[in-house]
Amino acid sequence: MVYPDEQIDDLGRGLSIIQKQKGFKYGTDSVLLAKFMLMNIKRCKHCVDMGTGTGILPLLISREPAVEKLTGIEIQAEYAEMAARSVKMNNLDGRVNILQGDIKDAPGLLGKGSVQAVVSNPPYKKAESGIKNSGDGLTIARHEVLCTLEDVIKNAALILEPGGYFFMVHRPERLADTMELMRKYRLEPKVLRMVQPKLSKQPSMFLVAAVKNAGRNLRVLPTLILMEEDGRNTKELDEIYEY
Amino acid sequence: MVYPDEQIDDLGRGLSIIQKQKGFKYGTDSVLLAKFMLMNIKRCKHCVDMGTGTGILPLLISREPAVEKLTGIEIQAEYAEMAARSVKMNNLDGRVNILQGDIKDAPGLLGKGSVQAVVSNPPYKKAESGIKNSGDGLTIARHEVLCTLEDVIKNAALILEPGGYFFMVHRPERLADTMELMRKYRLEPKVLRMVQPKLSKQPSMFLVAAVKNAGRNLRVLPTLILMEEDGRNTKELDEIYEY
Repeated sequence: MVYPDEQIDDLGRGLSIIQKQKGFKYGTDSVLLAKFMLMNIKRCKHCVDMGTGTGILPLLISREPAVEKLTGIEIQAEYAEMAARSVKMNNLDGRVNILQGDIKDAPGLLGKGSVQAVVSNPPYKKAESGIKNSGDGLTIARHEVLCTLEDVIKNAALILEPGGYFFMVHRPERLADTMELMRKYRLEPKVLRMVQPKLSKQPSMFLVAAVKNAGRNLRVLPTLILMEEDGRNTKELDEIYEY
Repeated sequence: MVYPDEQIDDLGRGLSIIQKQKGFKYGTDSVLLAKFMLMNIKRCKHCVDMGTGTGILPLLISREPAVEKLTGIEIQAEYAEMAARSVKMNNLDGRVNILQGDIKDAPGLLGKGSVQAVVSNPPYKKAESGIKNSGDGLTIARHEVLCTLEDVIKNAALILEPGGYFFMVHRPERLADTMELMRKYRLEPKVLRMVQPKLSKQPSMFLVAAVKNAGRNLRVLPTLILMEEDGRNTKELDEIYEY
């Protein structure tokens, strides 16, 4: 069930995940996004993760019983296959489903206006910014080689039902793009949270929640600080990891 | 020079301002915006303040000799007249000019593409949100009765030369509107800073700098915290006030 180039990592509270020893591994961004989603949504019949990679987001979100069904879409066959093994290893078959496919085909695969929540931790970097090997799995996970920010937002909007929630984490330099594209596809930004590594450092990411076809009213939460100036986790980050 | 319903307030470093005892008084937002502008722009031939009110922004910005000429536009005649007296009182005639007029007429009054910087601390609240007296001076300063966010951004873009800077302070709930409107009028958001009253509190405002016709690359600064949890000013706020 686990190949020699893979490892099993403990996610706490009885969950674990298979990851490649030399490949894309989940980071704090996914943990923060899962928690951010669960703080902003009470129940949900079907939640889709666009670009699920190792399957980290559906695995973490599956802790919440009020999220009934989870689908992770992943274009890279070897990641999709590995994520499916993680699902099986955690006895989540039936509740969590991994689909190997392109998020741009999600409306055809899942149906338009059919889901209550979409989450995404998409590639952060633009395709043109210094790519060496565009077919490499890490590059695909990190750069907009196979899907752009617009692809993610457009297709999330397409598969969400009116009033459905979209949750995303991205880099601060893409905040204006995100706001503009969300408005373009009628995903109204409702909650925004900046995330700083330390109080004295520039934000390294932002978390955003948007609601399909909603009215305008953005709430910005207090900036989340991950570490004290001396490098220890803040109390809030520890609480998120304990979740 | 000062009427019985007015008062003179000290701005420090030899500057002072006339304000109405019962009327719109300048706040921390204006002080932060003036400092934010001066941290982001080195020199400037002509800087225009859209909706100058008491004239607080041109007065504070006039401390920087590299800003050669300042124009404050104010639609309310009694505020414009009072601001002009503050200019005279500070011996800034010639360098700071107060224009009584509508910012929507700014392109006609000042010329399209003619200025290097625009600042604005516009009305924060939507016109429809519970207004009692829409002709009242305080209401006009605080609500979008006579000018909307779109009016401010559109006319700032019109009077700025390519590469010119626009600096604004606004409420977090208008961040998505701001980003969308800036993109619409080709004012590219370049620097953003959230401002929180305390580390534990939601942001009360944001500062944004945009550049006309610039490329996309937003830098988000560390969130500015105004007060310690016990209510004392933070070191950074004291430094801004000392500026």
